[in-house]
Amino acid sequence: MQIISLLTDFGLKDVYVAEMKAIILQICPEAKIIDISHNIEKFNVRMGAFMLACAAPYFPEGSIHIGVVDPGVGTERRAIIVETQRSWFVGPDNGLLMLAAEKEGIKHVYEIRNKAYMRFQVSHTFHGRDIFAPAAAYLARGIAVSEFGPEIIHYTTPEYAKAKLEENQVKGEILHIDDFGNIITNISISELEKLGVSEGDVISLIIGKDKFQVKLCSAYNEVSKGEALAIIGSHGFLEFSVNLGNAARQFKAEVGKCLKISRKC
Amino acid sequence: MQIISLLTDFGLKDVYVAEMKAIILQICPEAKIIDISHNIEKFNVRMGAFMLACAAPYFPEGSIHIGVVDPGVGTERRAIIVETQRSWFVGPDNGLLMLAAEKEGIKHVYEIRNKAYMRFQVSHTFHGRDIFAPAAAYLARGIAVSEFGPEIIHYTTPEYAKAKLEENQVKGEILHIDDFGNIITNISISELEKLGVSEGDVISLIIGKDKFQVKLCSAYNEVSKGEALAIIGSHGFLEFSVNLGNAARQFKAEVGKCLKISRKC
Amino acid sequence: MQIISLLTDFGLKDVYVAEMKAIILQICPEAKIIDISHNIEKFNVRMGAFMLACAAPYFPEGSIHIGVVDPGVGTERRAIIVETQRSWFVGPDNGLLMLAAEKEGIKHVYEIRNKAYMRFQVSHTFHGRDIFAPAAAYLARGIAVSEFGPEIIHYTTPEYAKAKLEENQVKGEILHIDDFGNIITNISISELEKLGVSEGDVISLIIGKDKFQVKLCSAYNEVSKGEALAIIGSHGFLEFSVNLGNAARQFKAEVGKCLKISRKC
Repeated sequence: MQIISLLTDFGLKDVYVAEMKAIILQICPEAKIIDISHNIEKFNVRMGAFMLACAAPYFPEGSIHIGVVDPGVGTERRAIIVETQRSWFVGPDNGLLMLAAEKEGIKHVYEIRNKAYMRFQVSHTFHGRDIFAPAAAYLARGIAVSEFGPEIIHYTTPEYAKAKLEENQVKGEILHIDDFGNIITNISISELEKLGVSEGDVISLIIGKDKFQVKLCSAYNEVSKGEALAIIGSHGFLEFSVNLGNAARQFKAEVGKCLKISRKC
Repeated sequence: MQIISLLTDFGLKDVYVAEMKAIILQICPEAKIIDISHNIEKFNVRMGAFMLACAAPYFPEGSIHIGVVDPGVGTERRAIIVETQRSWFVGPDNGLLMLAAEKEGIKHVYEIRNKAYMRFQVSHTFHGRDIFAPAAAYLARGIAVSEFGPEIIHYTTPEYAKAKLEENQVKGEILHIDDFGNIITNISISELEKLGVSEGDVISLIIGKDKFQVKLCSAYNEVSKGEALAIIGSHGFLEFSVNLGNAARQFKAEVGKCLKISRKC
Repeated sequence: MQIISLLTDFGLKDVYVAEMKAIILQICPEAKIIDISHNIEKFNVRMGAFMLACAAPYFPEGSIHIGVVDPGVGTERRAIIVETQRSWFVGPDNGLLMLAAEKEGIKHVYEIRNKAYMRFQVSHTFHGRDIFAPAAAYLARGIAVSEFGPEIIHYTTPEYAKAKLEENQVKGEILHIDDFGNIITNISISELEKLGVSEGDVISLIIGKDKFQVKLCSAYNEVSKGEALAIIGSHGFLEFSVNLGNAARQFKAEVGKCLKISRKC
């Protein structure tokens, strides 16, 4: 059995995702196709890269991940396959795949050029169906990755601000706001440790011009309904939440916005 | 082949559902995963329980249903497996699973405590991935349910108002409004029979301060386009609909609102 | 392995789609179920027919497609199975299936009448679960199509305006607006050729009272960010798009609206 996962910004109204799945099953009928998300914000490569990097580690070894957030479709941007220590990533060379791939350890990157493994007619607007889906399906069928095209050394990586420790505070940014309104930052446990913050402590948070004070909890309902808290989320990043509420609305948070945290004395 | 169904309030934007599926396939690669819904209103355990109870009876015997609408995640609320006469339910002990389970006949309820069947690291915010998905997958692989933890006798059941017959009327409530705007009530055929209402009769309906008169039909287009009707829905409950329209909008209906019906003389 | 695809207007909030899948797996556990779309505009048979006709050609031969956009459910409208040169279509006799089926070449159309292949109790409101899903699943299990009921000769076909060449312009209509805001018209490459328009030329476009001039490109980013373009889309129709933007919003486009194009001199 071979797992092929899909992450796109195609949405769930149109038939684009179904066409990709149909092509995969034509080539590799025994593939097990799993949707990661099709509701990545349109053209937002950074958000797609973040989501793929969150989800990929939970998949079995040898899984093949297709990512299609592809504002440059039809241009000279390359189509690539990334071989990592534990899986495969197929998609455009625009950084989308690389956050996830780097986490797993990149072994080789190949450009997809061999037309034998594309649809006979490649549209200018839908490489997900005409290039990436067939490539993943042939890979699942056991075609050697070197058959798809030449190895390449220079490829695009996504740029993310790393959280920075400055005196007694950490500067970070908002990576993602989930469907519950939880605010996921790029600040990890190690930065909190450097600040000397541990569970039960109160964190001072500055977003834009607003200041908040929230307790670092280990469960949402350590605070009352409607009250804000900080918590280490399920991906190991610092998150801000509201118990049974929506933190993004309460904190006027937006993806990409900067924030500063410090330990309340 | 083993079917595992998923019902959550996670939405379809984020990667949470995909992570649960990935974990299931790591443990039990041959599982067939079916989505029931991921668009349960956030934290609405009652709505989740209703939806699960609607869908579960249509699944094959021996299916395993995971339910995650879990406002108490990370607290002392227990994680449970319910064994019924025909299937299994895995999720939090907050009532979510019990409407469906009671319909099928509960045999035993077990608390999930054995860490051997959880992820090696259990987050405080995502038991769907770290406890419920692994438990369901190990169950699918044939691990005996008694291996997961001790049997428990006291568990949470959801509270629903039962429809009440009072003189010549039935008092009920709105259980659900579907994506078409159909209003699903908790009034069943047997209550209609007690009122002496049968197909072709006109029902007087009171919602809040508004009164309506609608015919009990057997198909939507027994009334003209845009006109309201009553109908026995596909789950055996009385529903109010508008032919080719949206009844919830027309009747200003909301989930949980009370209503009264009687036979028009 | 047998593929069964699903296209409905049920949305993804409710459990209706899951109930169909559960019924299919009860009857044919080895079926591979693929969602085409469940977000067809409610009751919009024409839109469903267009989407099904887009997606079906990419599926393997022998696939079974269930379509349920069914405003006449519960009435005398017939339930049918269409056998084409390469696949099967199951759904209501309201035109939904016929655009896709005609593309593949219709061999026979059968009415579904045999109650042995329906659920034991057929609701008046949900034939997707009670008639179409079982029929598709029994078909997948190898039941001969003639077993389901009599062959019929007269059936409903959807009416679409064909694009018309008039002197130096083509009159067409908007078939679909996708989730990116791309405007998909019913004008195909052959009509463009008759106008003498080829890549790099500028097209004059009239929608309602507004006039636009856009270049026929082969990739979205042949124009600057936010600028409009024309392009042959992935299904072979003329589309209007905005590079990294939303054309439908910019052109105030709506499905069904007429448009005229000509070659800019």
